Amino acid sequence: MQNYEADRNMPVGVFDSGVGGLTVVREISRNLPNEELIYFGDTARVPYGNKSKETVLRYSRQITRFLEKQHVKAIVVACNTASALALSELEQEIDIPIIGVVKPGANAAVKATRNKRIGVIATDSTINSRLYPEYIAASDPEIRVYGKACPLFVPLVEEGWTKDEITLAVAKRYLGELLEQEIDTLIMGCTHYPLLRTLLREYLGEGITLVNPAYETAGTLKALLAETGLEHKDEGEPKYQMYVSDSAEHFRRFAEKILPERIADVTQIAIEEY
Amino acid sequence: MQNYEADRNMPVGVFDSGVGGLTVVREISRNLPNEELIYFGDTARVPYGNKSKETVLRYSRQITRFLEKQHVKAIVVACNTASALALSELEQEIDIPIIGVVKPGANAAVKATRNKRIGVIATDSTINSRLYPEYIAASDPEIRVYGKACPLFVPLVEEGWTKDEITLAVAKRYLGELLEQEIDTLIMGCTHYPLLRTLLREYLGEGITLVNPAYETAGTLKALLAETGLEHKDEGEPKYQMYVSDSAEHFRRFAEKILPERIADVTQIAIEEY
Repeated sequence: MQNYEADRNMPVGVFDSGVGGLTVVREISRNLPNEELIYFGDTARVPYGNKSKETVLRYSRQITRFLEKQHVKAIVVACNTASALALSELEQEIDIPIIGVVKPGANAAVKATRNKRIGVIATDSTINSRLYPEYIAASDPEIRVYGKACPLFVPLVEEGWTKDEITLAVAKRYLGELLEQEIDTLIMGCTHYPLLRTLLREYLGEGITLVNPAYETAGTLKALLAETGLEHKDEGEPKYQMYVSDSAEHFRRFAEKILPERIADVTQIAIEEY
Repeated sequence: MQNYEADRNMPVGVFDSGVGGLTVVREISRNLPNEELIYFGDTARVPYGNKSKETVLRYSRQITRFLEKQHVKAIVVACNTASALALSELEQEIDIPIIGVVKPGANAAVKATRNKRIGVIATDSTINSRLYPEYIAASDPEIRVYGKACPLFVPLVEEGWTKDEITLAVAKRYLGELLEQEIDTLIMGCTHYPLLRTLLREYLGEGITLVNPAYETAGTLKALLAETGLEHKDEGEPKYQMYVSDSAEHFRRFAEKILPERIADVTQIAIEEY
C-alpha cells in the first residue's frame, strides 16, 4: 500500500490488455477533456480473454503497481476481462480509487432494457466469470441475462475486417442464439467490439439497444472525480502518455487511428519487473 | 553458458508459444518413440505471431534457460515464429544443439516443388522475417517464394472450426493470391495449420503439395541425435513431462486430444523468473 496525498492535477491511469482500451480512452477524452491520462497496454502478453483468473490477476497487479509509481490519482481498468477477473482483488489492495468497465456496462444495460432480457457478448473468461449477470441481478433480479463468448471478434477487428461478409457470417453464428431469446439490449463486453458497431447494428436492426460500457465508464469516472474533489481544473487538452510492453511503433500506428490528436509519447517498458 | 556432459538418456526439450507445438511432438513421438521429452508451452503469453522480434527473443531465452535447467540434451523450437525470430541468436548463446522448424520446412518444400513456385502461409511475424524465402534461396535461387500471413487461422483452429464454411471462406480470401502465382507446393508455416489440412486439401485439390514442417523437423532431430551419439537406447514409450505458464488444466484438455497416451504431468511454472 502506498500512502500519498492525491492531487487534482495528477493524471488518471487507464490500462488494458492491448489496444482495445483506447476506445475507453476516447470516451474519457470526450467526457473529461482536461484530464491528463497515462495509458498502459500489455501488448507483449495480449490477449487476456482466454487466460486464467490467476494469470490475469498477476498481470493486472504488475500494471497497477506501475501506474501507482506514475502517481495517478485514480485507475480505470479498461479491459473487460481484467475487470471481471481482477478488479475485486485490486480494490482491496490499493489506496487510490479504481473502477472497471463491467459494473458501468451492467448499469447502462439495466437502464436500457424494456423487456428485461439482456444479452452479453465478451471473451471466454469474461463470460465464464458470470460478473455481468451478477451485477445485473443485484440491480434487478427479474432481468434475464444471456451470455455468449465471441473469441473470433477480436482477431477479426485486428485483421481490419470490421465491415466484411465473413465477419457478418461469424456474427450470425454467435448471435443467433441470443436473438432467439428475444433480447432487447446487447452489452458489447469487450473493448474491441464497439469497432463492430456498424456491422452489429445492420444485422440486429434498430430494435436492440447496443450498450458500449465505455460511455458509462467515462461517466462513472467523472462522478468519482467530482465526489472526491479530484477533477482537473486547468483548461486545455493535454496529450496522453502511453506505455506498452511490446514494440512502441506497432502500437503507435493503431493508437493514432483512434486518437489522432492526443498521443504524446509511446514508451516500451518491462512490465514483469513491477 | 552451462557446461555439462550430454547423456543419451537425457530428455529432448521442445517449446512453443502454446499448444500448437504438440503437433510437432506428435511427429517426434512417431519417429523417435523411445525419446523422453520435456515440453514447454507459453500459454500465459501466447500468441507470438504478431509480436516483435525483441519480445519473442526475450521469451525464448527464458524458456531456453528453463529447459537447460531440466538437463535436456537438445532443444526443438517447435514454434515457427520463435524459430524465425529467435533461433539464430539462441544458437550462439547455448552449448547444446538446438533446431527449429523453419529450415526443415524450407528443405522439405525445396524437395517437393516441381515448378519452382512455393507458397508459405504463416503468422505476420514469420512472414515479415522473410526466413523461409531466405533458406529456400540458399538451396535453389531459382525458386520463387510467395508468402501470405494468415492471422485468423490460429483463432479459427482454437475455436474448433477446422471443417467449417466460414474457415473455408477465410482460406479462399487468404490463399487466392497464392493460387494466382501457380504455386505447386504450400508450406504450412505455423504449428496450428496442419489441423486445417483436410480443409486446405479440399480447397487446393491434389495438385498442390502441402508441407508440414513437423515431419522434416522430426527427421532432422533423428539425424542430429544419431550423428552426436545421443539417441536414447532404452526400449519403451516414455510419458512426456509438460510445463506451461498458464493454467495446467486448460492445457491438459487440449493436449490429451492430440497425444492421448503420452501425457504424464502438466505443471504450471513462473517462466518470467528464468
